Amino acid sequence: MARIDGRNVDQLRPVEIIPNINKFAEGSCLIRCGNTHVLCTASVEDKPPRHVPEGEGWVTAEYSMLPRANRERSKRDIAKLKLNGRSAEIQRLIGRALRSVVDMKKLGPWNITIDCDVLQGDGGTRTASVTGGFVAMMLAFRKMMENGQLAEYPVSGYVAAVSAGIVDDVALLDLCYEEDSAAMVDLNCVMDDQGRLIELQGTGEERPFTLEEQQQLVRLCHKGVVELQKIQKDVLGVEL
Amino acid sequence: MARIDGRNVDQLRPVEIIPNINKFAEGSCLIRCGNTHVLCTASVEDKPPRHVPEGEGWVTAEYSMLPRANRERSKRDIAKLKLNGRSAEIQRLIGRALRSVVDMKKLGPWNITIDCDVLQGDGGTRTASVTGGFVAMMLAFRKMMENGQLAEYPVSGYVAAVSAGIVDDVALLDLCYEEDSAAMVDLNCVMDDQGRLIELQGTGEERPFTLEEQQQLVRLCHKGVVELQKIQKDVLGVEL
Amino acid sequence: MARIDGRNVDQLRPVEIIPNINKFAEGSCLIRCGNTHVLCTASVEDKPPRHVPEGEGWVTAEYSMLPRANRERSKRDIAKLKLNGRSAEIQRLIGRALRSVVDMKKLGPWNITIDCDVLQGDGGTRTASVTGGFVAMMLAFRKMMENGQLAEYPVSGYVAAVSAGIVDDVALLDLCYEEDSAAMVDLNCVMDDQGRLIELQGTGEERPFTLEEQQQLVRLCHKGVVELQKIQKDVLGVEL
Amino acid sequence: MARIDGRNVDQLRPVEIIPNINKFAEGSCLIRCGNTHVLCTASVEDKPPRHVPEGEGWVTAEYSMLPRANRERSKRDIAKLKLNGRSAEIQRLIGRALRSVVDMKKLGPWNITIDCDVLQGDGGTRTASVTGGFVAMMLAFRKMMENGQLAEYPVSGYVAAVSAGIVDDVALLDLCYEEDSAAMVDLNCVMDDQGRLIELQGTGEERPFTLEEQQQLVRLCHKGVVELQKIQKDVLGVEL
Amino acid sequence: MARIDGRNVDQLRPVEIIPNINKFAEGSCLIRCGNTHVLCTASVEDKPPRHVPEGEGWVTAEYSMLPRANRERSKRDIAKLKLNGRSAEIQRLIGRALRSVVDMKKLGPWNITIDCDVLQGDGGTRTASVTGGFVAMMLAFRKMMENGQLAEYPVSGYVAAVSAGIVDDVALLDLCYEEDSAAMVDLNCVMDDQGRLIELQGTGEERPFTLEEQQQLVRLCHKGVVELQKIQKDVLGVEL
Amino acid sequence: MARIDGRNVDQLRPVEIIPNINKFAEGSCLIRCGNTHVLCTASVEDKPPRHVPEGEGWVTAEYSMLPRANRERSKRDIAKLKLNGRSAEIQRLIGRALRSVVDMKKLGPWNITIDCDVLQGDGGTRTASVTGGFVAMMLAFRKMMENGQLAEYPVSGYVAAVSAGIVDDVALLDLCYEEDSAAMVDLNCVMDDQGRLIELQGTGEERPFTLEEQQQLVRLCHKGVVELQKIQKDVLGVEL
Repeated sequence: MARIDGRNVDQLRPVEIIPNINKFAEGSCLIRCGNTHVLCTASVEDKPPRHVPEGEGWVTAEYSMLPRANRERSKRDIAKLKLNGRSAEIQRLIGRALRSVVDMKKLGPWNITIDCDVLQGDGGTRTASVTGGFVAMMLAFRKMMENGQLAEYPVSGYVAAVSAGIVDDVALLDLCYEEDSAAMVDLNCVMDDQGRLIELQGTGEERPFTLEEQQQLVRLCHKGVVELQKIQKDVLGVEL
Repeated sequence: MARIDGRNVDQLRPVEIIPNINKFAEGSCLIRCGNTHVLCTASVEDKPPRHVPEGEGWVTAEYSMLPRANRERSKRDIAKLKLNGRSAEIQRLIGRALRSVVDMKKLGPWNITIDCDVLQGDGGTRTASVTGGFVAMMLAFRKMMENGQLAEYPVSGYVAAVSAGIVDDVALLDLCYEEDSAAMVDLNCVMDDQGRLIELQGTGEERPFTLEEQQQLVRLCHKGVVELQKIQKDVLGVEL
Repeated sequence: MARIDGRNVDQLRPVEIIPNINKFAEGSCLIRCGNTHVLCTASVEDKPPRHVPEGEGWVTAEYSMLPRANRERSKRDIAKLKLNGRSAEIQRLIGRALRSVVDMKKLGPWNITIDCDVLQGDGGTRTASVTGGFVAMMLAFRKMMENGQLAEYPVSGYVAAVSAGIVDDVALLDLCYEEDSAAMVDLNCVMDDQGRLIELQGTGEERPFTLEEQQQLVRLCHKGVVELQKIQKDVLGVEL
Repeated sequence: MARIDGRNVDQLRPVEIIPNINKFAEGSCLIRCGNTHVLCTASVEDKPPRHVPEGEGWVTAEYSMLPRANRERSKRDIAKLKLNGRSAEIQRLIGRALRSVVDMKKLGPWNITIDCDVLQGDGGTRTASVTGGFVAMMLAFRKMMENGQLAEYPVSGYVAAVSAGIVDDVALLDLCYEEDSAAMVDLNCVMDDQGRLIELQGTGEERPFTLEEQQQLVRLCHKGVVELQKIQKDVLGVEL
Repeated sequence: MARIDGRNVDQLRPVEIIPNINKFAEGSCLIRCGNTHVLCTASVEDKPPRHVPEGEGWVTAEYSMLPRANRERSKRDIAKLKLNGRSAEIQRLIGRALRSVVDMKKLGPWNITIDCDVLQGDGGTRTASVTGGFVAMMLAFRKMMENGQLAEYPVSGYVAAVSAGIVDDVALLDLCYEEDSAAMVDLNCVMDDQGRLIELQGTGEERPFTLEEQQQLVRLCHKGVVELQKIQKDVLGVEL
Repeated sequence: MARIDGRNVDQLRPVEIIPNINKFAEGSCLIRCGNTHVLCTASVEDKPPRHVPEGEGWVTAEYSMLPRANRERSKRDIAKLKLNGRSAEIQRLIGRALRSVVDMKKLGPWNITIDCDVLQGDGGTRTASVTGGFVAMMLAFRKMMENGQLAEYPVSGYVAAVSAGIVDDVALLDLCYEEDSAAMVDLNCVMDDQGRLIELQGTGEERPFTLEEQQQLVRLCHKGVVELQKIQKDVLGVEL
């Protein structure tokens, strides 16, 4: 089966991460995965939320799409006075994923907010947000180290994410929008750089999927994550 | 390792499903999984949402906790004017899970709303909601068949859900609240009655997890789902 | 005139109050008045609202119906971003009624929230909420006494409530939904155990009513309240 | 006991109703009861709400206080994104009271909105709103008759309202703010011009009240309502 | 060209400012400019917003129209859960205009809120609000001086506002609603009593306008502002 | 006086307009005015708002800042459930400005939404939004002409906008953030390509300004608008 954009079944779309895209944010990047473009900024503030133990920090994420990120314009959340349910789900995922590798005691009493704003969406915006959000967070930590607010990166490893799915009974890595719309099964993996899972979400809205299919999709994702983390390391130049 | 309530590692909490708990709803049940109690109702209305093709139906779910379902009282959503982000995530999961086995063409132009209201929560409320929500939905379909609104169950199989997690490096089935709070890894499976996955969500907020651990947790869930579906079948008395 | 369910004009529906229905709340009960079922919980927190004098406590109530408590499903408040006007009115009534017998100085600096969630509604939900809410509140006070947070019940008397109405020019006690829908006049009484009024609300939306009719309805309510307070006393086993 | 403003126990505050205060509204008046000033407008629109039977009309009311109507400035509802619970309760009362005397079939397919905006509040704003709202409604009906939209007043009688209360164990008519703040018992009556009750709300937040006290308060209100209806009739010049 | 109400092109509508219209507000007036009636109150509170330097004060404004201020009834903001965009724009203008002449250090740590509620709107409500709001603010300052909270008026000059516009290519002062609806160009000026501009807003939604036209409109406004400030001075009797 | 970035008093910041930045929008550009970056998209839909005469079209604008567009992170509107008042004011300005040159009859029954999302803000975001929004709108019209939905550009002229202000008593063109923060007077002009005004907003929050100063600022803006319109014409290559 030929993919719509000629890729191999286990091939990522072209990925580009442009660091420091925002002049004001402590950390930022623009991540482009094919036609999916997400602007990620990391903001450092000094008030972690109340539930955080004294002296420790917190990382939280917000995700939103610009109204014309997609093929059709959608209304802004504020016009409906409701945070989009899908956005709520995604930003919780991004936050959990990034927190999983941050040592909150080492971070100290800082609140890091990762804003992932989708400028253009062509499938895979949540996984691009995790991958780009990690870079923005690391750049903010670097700025904090330069400012003497941190002694070292309070981070235990690289985090990246990618999706895979089953289209016409074929497992494909990194679905673009057309593939995603036609997918029987869709699965996202957030993984660290030791090949371990941090978050795993699989959905078979069109049909159920077997444990073997699930494993196959996770292996595809693993291949993609390794490549994404190589790009992250090239951009950041940091070993963890 | 002894579990807090003396269960084996692969043992469900006592499960009870009381059908027809609500006099007015087309379908309903109260599901009790240990101290987790969820009231599930299925409401039949004749206006599917606009995005549904003419002549087809839809199934959607809403999930909410009563303010004192938990150890501490939480504010109602309306007091904060915001749907709780966790609720938004969970009700999307329940809806996807139930839709996965419904043939919308066979259902015809009906809108089914599954309301899952947690009266008491002790861990596993989202999976109990899926399991109980399926029963409520089936009972509503039965009522529709009795009313001549449906010719047969527009459903391809049973759906149930359960969680498993890793606590102190031991994989456990069906975490109660104390176990869930201490879990390093938490994974939920929604499965059909052929042992296939419908939804899979795994999170390693405390530590990443290996592919082997992930498989082990899925197998534990599978065991639990088989038992839950036996209870569903006893309550419903229907082969699909 | 025969009543729809065969009761005498001055006869309550069967009433059942199941105490301690919720494992976590400091006080709770499920009250069933015929087919009207209300889950009442009392939550104890240590921050009374700001308008309360230093050292004193407060009692407040919230009232809500589950979406399928009624013959037709209604949208949740959060879906409309508005607290239902009827709920706003009712929860203010419940709060005033319960506060009327609580000595806020004796209560001390505690905030008691009574949540009345209607699981199934067949008329008389506001009065059932007052009657059940009183029991939940008393059980919370008992728990506080056991915990050493209170020396005695800070309560001057029993409180219960019931409605009466005029249907086809006949005065009836404790209207069920069908009767309520057909009533010309509807009147609710909250009373203490000395036969005194705490709250009185009468409405003649179908036709005005005379002072004699009003008195007759109050007398009917008084009869019902005496019976309800007997049930409350049986459940609580406390003389005030 | 001398009243704070020297009135007899059964004496109304000075009442003034200025009709046609608003150039655009179909009906309007400014009602002043002592220092309580309420601007009432009646707006005629051609779309009754959906629940109204085809061909019939509806009357609804909205009530609000200007932010500085009171001794202290209060925030606008929109600043809190919540309709004030007290306002919700009051506007429901006003709407029920006015609807009680309107024949919706005679009214025909018109929607009448009575807006009661309190410019200055010194106690009794809800009853002043009913009394003034009735006048605004009647003036709108007159305008509709002039326009050929109505053949006659679709109204069965005059409606007015007043409060009474027990202060220092003395029953007083028409409480001003200071009296209201000190009242043990507060009771509002909406009555027609045949001395019958339309709405009755009594509250004993400070102490319960006997049936005799309740009757005494209703009689005081009756006296006040007769006087208010005389003023309404002088303003309107209409026999019903 | 004859104006609809017979005025000269450079003639204001009859203006009346009734001070102290509200018994409770520290300062208040009702301003009538023709059929435009705005109730302005100034409320003094002791908590300036957080962004204000320690020891200094602040002046803010809120603007709203009663639902039936206009030819057609409009919904209340709270019914739509959104502050009207036009109101948001106008209240920001009023606040900036009044702040421009207040010395926040002299004012000291007080927060002044100017509420401008349009009882009836016939064009020019924003400029009437500025003119009336200034008077209400000054009266509040006078009260604060009487109370010993202020030593002198912390104000550098009088502020008033008026609009002008081009209708059928003729420049007119102080447009009423009909003129405003037909205007090609509309321009509002807020000016001090030395003929200087504080705010200037011109809009050519029907057609662009030349710099000469803009100057002509500003000169018309200047003439109107001089007359309005004379009325303000007559009401206040204060030289600044 | 040297400007902070070395510009002459009448010199614009470097301006760049990148057209077609968004793959899905009918028209789009990224406009950079110094460090102010605004993403403008124009979306074509077929439902003009209800108030538009049958057969005619409409142009509306929405304006928003990404949370980290500025030196400090600000909360999203949806987190506060309120459209920022400043955004409300600005988007009304953009909409009026663009509508002023569009012939709604020629446009026909299309609704054009211009979304201006500030990726990075360093002063002048509202004027950059007008200038970039015009380009996005024109590109959407071009696409509609290519699609046969329009016969010609329904536009009477170019529209661009710029600010000027008085800093330390010196009039400067195109204020950057630091200059804007220090400005005594700030004035924005929207102009067409015949040197006429479309919108004019001047504010003297720090001090009032004379008619001469106002004229001087308008002349500065005129110079800037001529240069901006040359850039717009280079990008669009269209004579109107």
